[in-house]
Amino acid sequence: MQFTSEQRLDDGVLEREFTLDEIPGILWTPGSASASAPVPLILIGHPGGVHRMYPRLVGRARQCAADGFASATIELPGSGDRPPSATAEQARADLRRALEAGERVSEEIIDRLILPLVEKAVPEWQATLDALLSLPEIGGPVGYSGGVIAIGVRLAVVEPRIAAAGLFAGSFVPRATFEEARQVTIPLHVLLQWDDEGNDRQAALDLFDAFGSKEKTLNANMGGHTGVPASAGDAAARFFTRHLS
Amino acid sequence: MQFTSEQRLDDGVLEREFTLDEIPGILWTPGSASASAPVPLILIGHPGGVHRMYPRLVGRARQCAADGFASATIELPGSGDRPPSATAEQARADLRRALEAGERVSEEIIDRLILPLVEKAVPEWQATLDALLSLPEIGGPVGYSGGVIAIGVRLAVVEPRIAAAGLFAGSFVPRATFEEARQVTIPLHVLLQWDDEGNDRQAALDLFDAFGSKEKTLNANMGGHTGVPASAGDAAARFFTRHLS
Repeated sequence: MQFTSEQRLDDGVLEREFTLDEIPGILWTPGSASASAPVPLILIGHPGGVHRMYPRLVGRARQCAADGFASATIELPGSGDRPPSATAEQARADLRRALEAGERVSEEIIDRLILPLVEKAVPEWQATLDALLSLPEIGGPVGYSGGVIAIGVRLAVVEPRIAAAGLFAGSFVPRATFEEARQVTIPLHVLLQWDDEGNDRQAALDLFDAFGSKEKTLNANMGGHTGVPASAGDAAARFFTRHLS
Repeated sequence: MQFTSEQRLDDGVLEREFTLDEIPGILWTPGSASASAPVPLILIGHPGGVHRMYPRLVGRARQCAADGFASATIELPGSGDRPPSATAEQARADLRRALEAGERVSEEIIDRLILPLVEKAVPEWQATLDALLSLPEIGGPVGYSGGVIAIGVRLAVVEPRIAAAGLFAGSFVPRATFEEARQVTIPLHVLLQWDDEGNDRQAALDLFDAFGSKEKTLNANMGGHTGVPASAGDAAARFFTRHLS
């Protein structure tokens, strides 16, 4: 892991860009972090495109820091400045075609779009976790927050260092993910935008039902895909405070 | 409204029992209430049986007081020490018979059980509201919290003094209530116990979908009908603080 830039934000948060095996990422630590004991960590997921998503990512990172947590994100395979994937581009073109034709998006397209992404992204998140946890200012426990839900589900199943996950039920769910969801046992906080124009509400409810976790909360709100109300962000933050502090 | 008893709880909350047209009720005000400006009010609903429900009601009242709100409850028609209703008793017996036989509870039984209760209880809550708002220590705005959901829906439609409602999707929903739900426009916080053994989850989701409110949140958790986690109680309290403070 190489740090490539460093800046102090106005609220004292230290923002450091890094690369890890050519994957770009950003680490945020609270202003007080170096002076005190190692802090818990939240991995911040997103739909791809760290620069495009930066305003929302840094907002979530500031909230994490205010709650006493470090947070970090990495670019998704095939997104942002990373080399594009021909199969993903093809799947995305097929998806666009189906949506423009007003057709139901087939499970086959969803599988082609999401499953290779999960296969590639999950080990990258795990390598990032190795690197971050080796820093003296970062300890555990570790939470995973948001992003492509199939990645969050896989991480929750395969990565025992993740103690709690806040998931955003706003992306396509491959069939295999419903099966994996039964193996998830960590506490979950699932956010659903009830009238999300690009999301299958019933699939989100089925996925919530499938999770094996004894402690899981569904927090559904109005306002479309990008209209998550501030109160829902606050509720997610409190979830992490309960489980990581 | 006649106050019939008064006691100061250990956290300074003033608890006063009252009767209003022979309906028994309880009013709780924060320890600081008489000394300061009039406080907002939360009407605390329940499934009937104020004495049986007292431990949970006083817990909710203490939370209201800690947040700076007065709160009050009244006995439901036909419950507790109030004269029983022959039609309600008959409907309850038919309900029990259906449940014991493992049958689906018919819409006709639900209508007979709930609709007369709504017709009678709602004007009683409104008369209670008149009386409570005439007390110098109680102002507005007013919230309604929990209890038989069809009563909460009707109150949200017909009583303009109610500014926000926290509803518990854990009771039978008459067909007419789904139609009324479309007329509700106040902010709503709906609590659902996902694996509530005595509750129809799909009916709860359909009701949430039907509400006309632009601002509505569904908060679903594990734990059965009486297993609402503390975090869900906290989330409901924060909802009222956002809308009534």
